Amino acid sequence: MEKNYRINSLFEFYRPLLTNKQDSYIQLYYADDYSLGEISEEFNVSRQAVYDNIRRTEVILEKYEEQLHLYADFVKRNDQTDAIRNYVKDNYPNDDKLNQLVDDLEITEEK
Amino acid sequence: MEKNYRINSLFEFYRPLLTNKQDSYIQLYYADDYSLGEISEEFNVSRQAVYDNIRRTEVILEKYEEQLHLYADFVKRNDQTDAIRNYVKDNYPNDDKLNQLVDDLEITEEK
Repeated sequence: MEKNYRINSLFEFYRPLLTNKQDSYIQLYYADDYSLGEISEEFNVSRQAVYDNIRRTEVILEKYEEQLHLYADFVKRNDQTDAIRNYVKDNYPNDDKLNQLVDDLEITEEK
Repeated sequence: MEKNYRINSLFEFYRPLLTNKQDSYIQLYYADDYSLGEISEEFNVSRQAVYDNIRRTEVILEKYEEQLHLYADFVKRNDQTDAIRNYVKDNYPNDDKLNQLVDDLEITEEK
């Protein structure tokens, strides 16, 4: 089970849909970089139980992404917003109003 | 039970998370404007059963929005993108590249 950026990203988007236990294990394993052994000690369950739960949650996260594609949409919008940001910065650096409008959109994107 | 724009909008965002039955009833009632009586005939169940199912699904849709706020985020991003669109149209109508970049973002937004 490779700790990967993708699961961490999906976790950010779909976290509110997980149960408390799913949330805790993924948070500790992926975001806080605990080992399976450390999590199993913390929760007083077997290492295998933690592993199985995390594996199942990964499948759930991928299923949500298949259904709602929030992460893919975010990446696409983000690239397009960056393109506007860079173009405006290069071509209209002194148009404060336009730069502010693009800043506002970037802030919303990143929330 | 008022047929309203909000439920229709939430339905567009969270539809993939609904069961087939929830999906069918909401589609017919909100999107296709069937009456409860017509749906109950179509599915050969009581009018009350249809009503209860739709009511429950509305609560589910609102819960998803509370958790993921996709609709609220969409409205906000859309307003900000409109503001950029209008500003660019008024101030840089002949900058084809900039207009194209904003068009691209608008198309992604609306999908």
